[in-house]
Amino acid sequence: MKVIIVGGVAGGASCAARLRRLDEKVEILMVERGPYVSYANCGLPYYVSGTIENESSLLVATEQMFRTVFAIDCRPNCEVIGINSKKKTVDLKNHQTGEVTTEKYDKLVLSPGAAPIRPPLPGIDLPGIFSVRTVADAKNMREWLDRETDRSVGNSFTGVDTVSKPKHAVVVGGGFIGLEMVENLVHRGLEVTLIEKLNQVMPPLDPEMALLVKRYMEKRSIKVEVNDGVAGFRKSANGGLEVLTEAGKAHPADIVIMAIGVKPETALAKMAGIEIGQRGGIRVNEQMVTSNPDIFAVGDAVEVKDFVTSQWTLIPLAGPANRQGRIVADVIAGRKSKFRGTQGTSICKLFEATIAQTGTNEKVLKQLGDTDYEKIYLYPNSHAGYYPGAKILVIKVLFRKSNGKLLGAQVLGEDGVAKRIDSFAMAIQMGCTIYDLEESELSYAPPYGSAKDPVNFAGMVAADVLKGDMPIIHWEAVGKGLVLDVRNPQEVEAGGYPGAVNIPLPQLRSRLKELPRDKEIHILCRSAQRAYYATRILLQNGFKAKNISGGMLARSHRAVESSGDKS
Amino acid sequence: MKVIIVGGVAGGASCAARLRRLDEKVEILMVERGPYVSYANCGLPYYVSGTIENESSLLVATEQMFRTVFAIDCRPNCEVIGINSKKKTVDLKNHQTGEVTTEKYDKLVLSPGAAPIRPPLPGIDLPGIFSVRTVADAKNMREWLDRETDRSVGNSFTGVDTVSKPKHAVVVGGGFIGLEMVENLVHRGLEVTLIEKLNQVMPPLDPEMALLVKRYMEKRSIKVEVNDGVAGFRKSANGGLEVLTEAGKAHPADIVIMAIGVKPETALAKMAGIEIGQRGGIRVNEQMVTSNPDIFAVGDAVEVKDFVTSQWTLIPLAGPANRQGRIVADVIAGRKSKFRGTQGTSICKLFEATIAQTGTNEKVLKQLGDTDYEKIYLYPNSHAGYYPGAKILVIKVLFRKSNGKLLGAQVLGEDGVAKRIDSFAMAIQMGCTIYDLEESELSYAPPYGSAKDPVNFAGMVAADVLKGDMPIIHWEAVGKGLVLDVRNPQEVEAGGYPGAVNIPLPQLRSRLKELPRDKEIHILCRSAQRAYYATRILLQNGFKAKNISGGMLARSHRAVESSGDKS
Repeated sequence: MKVIIVGGVAGGASCAARLRRLDEKVEILMVERGPYVSYANCGLPYYVSGTIENESSLLVATEQMFRTVFAIDCRPNCEVIGINSKKKTVDLKNHQTGEVTTEKYDKLVLSPGAAPIRPPLPGIDLPGIFSVRTVADAKNMREWLDRETDRSVGNSFTGVDTVSKPKHAVVVGGGFIGLEMVENLVHRGLEVTLIEKLNQVMPPLDPEMALLVKRYMEKRSIKVEVNDGVAGFRKSANGGLEVLTEAGKAHPADIVIMAIGVKPETALAKMAGIEIGQRGGIRVNEQMVTSNPDIFAVGDAVEVKDFVTSQWTLIPLAGPANRQGRIVADVIAGRKSKFRGTQGTSICKLFEATIAQTGTNEKVLKQLGDTDYEKIYLYPNSHAGYYPGAKILVIKVLFRKSNGKLLGAQVLGEDGVAKRIDSFAMAIQMGCTIYDLEESELSYAPPYGSAKDPVNFAGMVAADVLKGDMPIIHWEAVGKGLVLDVRNPQEVEAGGYPGAVNIPLPQLRSRLKELPRDKEIHILCRSAQRAYYATRILLQNGFKAKNISGGMLARSHRAVESSGDKS
Repeated sequence: MKVIIVGGVAGGASCAARLRRLDEKVEILMVERGPYVSYANCGLPYYVSGTIENESSLLVATEQMFRTVFAIDCRPNCEVIGINSKKKTVDLKNHQTGEVTTEKYDKLVLSPGAAPIRPPLPGIDLPGIFSVRTVADAKNMREWLDRETDRSVGNSFTGVDTVSKPKHAVVVGGGFIGLEMVENLVHRGLEVTLIEKLNQVMPPLDPEMALLVKRYMEKRSIKVEVNDGVAGFRKSANGGLEVLTEAGKAHPADIVIMAIGVKPETALAKMAGIEIGQRGGIRVNEQMVTSNPDIFAVGDAVEVKDFVTSQWTLIPLAGPANRQGRIVADVIAGRKSKFRGTQGTSICKLFEATIAQTGTNEKVLKQLGDTDYEKIYLYPNSHAGYYPGAKILVIKVLFRKSNGKLLGAQVLGEDGVAKRIDSFAMAIQMGCTIYDLEESELSYAPPYGSAKDPVNFAGMVAADVLKGDMPIIHWEAVGKGLVLDVRNPQEVEAGGYPGAVNIPLPQLRSRLKELPRDKEIHILCRSAQRAYYATRILLQNGFKAKNISGGMLARSHRAVESSGDKS
């Protein structure tokens, strides 16, 4: 039995190593187009800034290790240039010698990854425009940033500033890699502009959550331009670049990072004549088998089933790629492993902040025409407020109206984000309901959480909504009823909802006669906690009351304006 | 309907507030013996050091808030001195006026908590010996530490050091509160000795894990004396104290903290004639109803069912207390809520380290005579090793041999501990198997984790064991077979297992003939990873091979010596 694995990074390398562990006898050939196998592509942005100092740190396992420890014929700098799936052969080109050879396989595993999208825009090939995929990309960027640029053009009279390091960077695309590059370029001392064609950064988030990410960057003097695509690039008078946008702007740039997404590499799949899905990725079944029973595919190049929505999707992330690689090894070795699909758990560091999500988001539910869901917003402390260092978490949770099943969570903040998203991720995997979240026994001591952890709190709030104890209304619907603000007058003075009636919560029971019984009352406070108490009082006294979900805090970052939104 | 709630901290206060939200009409009287309701007792150790600066930070909700927001008759400084469960009355003593009144109830909720154990040892009442329960305790400690002590006795000649602040502290008891007090006393600049009667600190951990906690403290110059109980206290010549131990030692102390555990407060329960369980706590059912259908009990005073072992247990933690309070409110309001039991999830900060556990431990399984379990030890990085700041996590995972169900996890380390314990906690709650852990899609980016998160890794290792791919042997059983060390010679030189044969992993396939086929081979490396690869090679070549679980790293902290343990 001979297995050829094409692509030696996350999915391919995992598959190769596990296959050897399962089977000492199988012949394994792993080829990798680039010079390195098993490198840490997730670390590349941090190498650019020098946060990761040495290139060697990025090399997880070497060719040598694959050869000696795993007895794998490991060939970097070796590209597949042809596949004959009838004869079950691949044509390999050694990029160092130029030699082309043909190898037979019994099973072929494709792990080609996904390529950064580089649209054929005017000037796209100018020096200084980079993508982030390989170690070479990161090295080239670092060298480009290290170099001193002659800026004497137009400045020769003073002699000042004639030589300078790159100063302005433009990052095109506001997804994970874009944001990581923004952070790392700022660490290098550059002034950074981020350009995003969509109306929001971080596509896995819903727009109102992404708005907070945009503001967070703007507070750090990063220029963030959403709703504007790149039209082209040109050289500027001072020897730098200019990034031209569809809206007609020109942003100066000494370096440009293209991070508008990736596209599954399907050239090999096409050579092999295997099925490509509607999303443009290689179509595989639960055993990661393609439409050809002798060809497997894993990683960023394949379409996977979304665990929550059951839709085909593209999830170019290292975690699923590694698990898929293991599953292919299992299946080749005759085991019954299955890939369970993906829930899109992802996380991104942005300076002090962490941005994370798992499961599905509201955008996707709306696209699917799914109306059997409810959402809540929470703003709990990351740990006990009385212990130093607590930060506010912004949490959005989506769940099934009909049965309480958890559908998705988005968490932003400067402390304790990863912990909560992992709890939510595990919960979604196990089919948790919001009632399960209420009862979860998570770790608590003041430096780490609260006796009611934010995850419990999410369950409690959601349960109050589903049980009818706390009807809620979202900001996009506020405007028709009476708005009752139950905060203190000082808080209202600092900013409130126009036309709202103010009755501070402690006075509510004694001032019920001031409220109408024929009109829906929408209750407002800072975070919806006091409004919850007020909702309970009003409901039990026969009023029609709803809590405005997320209160003033949610209002501060809603993406859709509501009718009373002029204040 | 009138409900009297006795005890106004975690469980009682949660119950009172939720009951009001569920029912505007019910009359609620909440009495609290101490001067504060709803204070943050988990924050007390941090108040002693000044990490939490102001007393006011410890007050979560005030009497005033309960009165105005929740319309609750809230009475601090008010103690229950009698219960007549036939007449359904309680006698209340107002500690400020001395007045005694009798109040009728329809439902009574007991949330009296647990009292620090203070054995009647000689000298136990000397000034300077404190327990940690109330705000007053913490204030008294802080004042005691702030005061300047006259040390002129025996030192009047030199005049030096005649006045000094407390310098030596002895903490008695190495559980959560003991450890938190150790840290906070060190922050105050004291030299600390910790005395623990058991053979280990942190009883929720297994001894070999607790050993690492002890060493961690010792590295910070804390004197840790295990296996030695306190025999008494006496005044020393210089005006301080001496703590006398059962082993005959005398430890100087300017302050002593008694933290040897807590005992459920059952005096009220006894007055009410309700059942007390074998563990000494109030016995309740899933609705938190005691043996008297009109009396509920919650919090540290009750026995709860262990979710994993189904045994009655005492878990004096704030999280369960809060959830129990909510459940009682639900039940009184006519809802069907049930307490699911507890899994003992807990966490403790100790300087830079975090110590956490969830589910059951091996000690308990052994006590129960349960042999249907296996354990593994892991030493993964807290996040991608190539990203700065990664620290080694020490993880012990227990799972069912028969079906792979996760039973418990213990995690120690200086980064990412809380996150992993919460994932394990959620997994146990949802009845996860180790196969589910393998497939969990947790958040990954280099600053937060690895593509194979430590939680996935635990699942993978456990699955390899259960599927028979990697037979393991634990250190306590090593000694009879041949030990094969597959590390590099330099590593072996720095410390190895006496008599082990050394064949570095890359040479193993070519040197198989050097190994015996009639003898069990126990394979050793640093963390058991390379030994796993070696185990696979040997097994498939017909050898009898087992991986020594946790490798040299596990050896460095095993609590039970193995036969070859003289090196």
